[in-house]
Amino acid sequence: MKIGVDLGGTTIKVGLVDDNYAIVQTAVGDTKRGRPAEEIIKDMADLCLEVMNKQGIDSVETIGIGCPGMASGGIIKRSSNLDFYDVDVRVLMNKYIDAQIFVENDANVAALGEVAAGAAKGKTNAVMVTLGTGVGGGIIANGKIFSGAFGGAGEIGHQIIKFDNGIDCGCGRTGCWEQYASATALIRQAEEALNKKNITAKDVFELAENGNTLAKDVLENYLQFVSMGITNMINILEPEIIIIGGGISAQKEVITEPIKKYVQQQMYGGLQLQTEIKTAELGNDAGIIGAALLKI
Amino acid sequence: MKIGVDLGGTTIKVGLVDDNYAIVQTAVGDTKRGRPAEEIIKDMADLCLEVMNKQGIDSVETIGIGCPGMASGGIIKRSSNLDFYDVDVRVLMNKYIDAQIFVENDANVAALGEVAAGAAKGKTNAVMVTLGTGVGGGIIANGKIFSGAFGGAGEIGHQIIKFDNGIDCGCGRTGCWEQYASATALIRQAEEALNKKNITAKDVFELAENGNTLAKDVLENYLQFVSMGITNMINILEPEIIIIGGGISAQKEVITEPIKKYVQQQMYGGLQLQTEIKTAELGNDAGIIGAALLKI
Repeated sequence: MKIGVDLGGTTIKVGLVDDNYAIVQTAVGDTKRGRPAEEIIKDMADLCLEVMNKQGIDSVETIGIGCPGMASGGIIKRSSNLDFYDVDVRVLMNKYIDAQIFVENDANVAALGEVAAGAAKGKTNAVMVTLGTGVGGGIIANGKIFSGAFGGAGEIGHQIIKFDNGIDCGCGRTGCWEQYASATALIRQAEEALNKKNITAKDVFELAENGNTLAKDVLENYLQFVSMGITNMINILEPEIIIIGGGISAQKEVITEPIKKYVQQQMYGGLQLQTEIKTAELGNDAGIIGAALLKI
Repeated sequence: MKIGVDLGGTTIKVGLVDDNYAIVQTAVGDTKRGRPAEEIIKDMADLCLEVMNKQGIDSVETIGIGCPGMASGGIIKRSSNLDFYDVDVRVLMNKYIDAQIFVENDANVAALGEVAAGAAKGKTNAVMVTLGTGVGGGIIANGKIFSGAFGGAGEIGHQIIKFDNGIDCGCGRTGCWEQYASATALIRQAEEALNKKNITAKDVFELAENGNTLAKDVLENYLQFVSMGITNMINILEPEIIIIGGGISAQKEVITEPIKKYVQQQMYGGLQLQTEIKTAELGNDAGIIGAALLKI
């Protein structure tokens, strides 16, 4: 048995994961962000002990933790969402539980979960693209998380796709892909085109489905932005599969069919697209299952 | 002893490489492109036998071959420069020489050479960016060439950096990085700004050095384009080192110093740039040395 933890800025989700990648016990707590790392990690350890107690076991092989920001080995180097900087999670967790502890970026962890038990099962080279508040990414190379030389790889949302008059990005650059392809961007594009406020991403899909031409145009344009960065990723990394995650991935073929078409149109020299493009299958469980799979 | 071959569209360069990555014998021949693959490969085998004879040896461990296009294992899948499609180089070479044969894309091979014996010596995660007619790329991950799921990874020149009114690219897209950051692009930018014809890349650097303001501006702008794609690559892959190759790399610090400055300005949230940025050191030898290092 292994434990996977999805340590978010709002919630700590802990799951006990068996050898078939099934989550057999869960426990959830509030992060109450802003507290010292020691307190948050104590709560996380208590939630781990809780799932172990529920299952009637007193030890686990490993505890893997996915969190926003830069993390590798046993250390969270930098997580603005958690307000953690150079936090040695391994040492703090081992005060309460004797198990091997691993931490990793949450997008990388979700990608690992999808490769183990989700949309990319059996694949060894995959890129997960999460369309949410921003555009996140997780790269799996030769079956393992590829986190770069300093633990920060996979920031695929921060590739410039429009260098002149691009939209300002939180990262400090202008014209980053996430400013055009995130769920936030879709909402902004729809609000502008429809001249409405408080639209959700789901609204845009519903309006388009019901024949609203403006919404259809917004969506077509948006999915072209998505396909642009995906084609960049294929040209750079040529994975076996691109997994699309985030809330929008619930739309399944409604997004993957047009994206495949647009990517095919952009393939190098008109070559046949070989990379599969699918939506994620594990939803929020990807974070727990992927975290449970972390190892050296 | 190993043999490395740089099989280009114009020339076949063969080198006998020792365990210290030194090229101890060489032989060169014309590709005479357009001939059947069998003939070209027979010539290549003869050149290999020539370097072996010169050295007085009758066997080598491996023969590695770098070539333009998509190649992996023992097969050149697609090389428009050589006019080779699905050519089983291993079988054809083994008619003449009994050695293990490996083929790979030439940009990947050059990256491997620089990692073994050049600018990136000792590094395990590296990206080589070749600024030439186009912008080529080679990715080294965990000490090995990363060629993707289908042998086509590393086409980093074909990431869109300007999606609206971008310059048409040979790959079929518009606004690809190579249209702004290749040596060809620099020449075009200089010809436009200086309103002259037949300028070389070297001319632009010389003019700028001699105080020509227009040339200085062109160069500054050009190096910003270069740094834009490099920053994209750092955000996506975060290698230990970016190696800049191609003819322009002869300019050394004249290009790396401004590029480092521009990349630093674009770093995520203003973080300190950790990735080294250096020019290539092996020049044309990288292709031979890298090829000699190919293995399973």
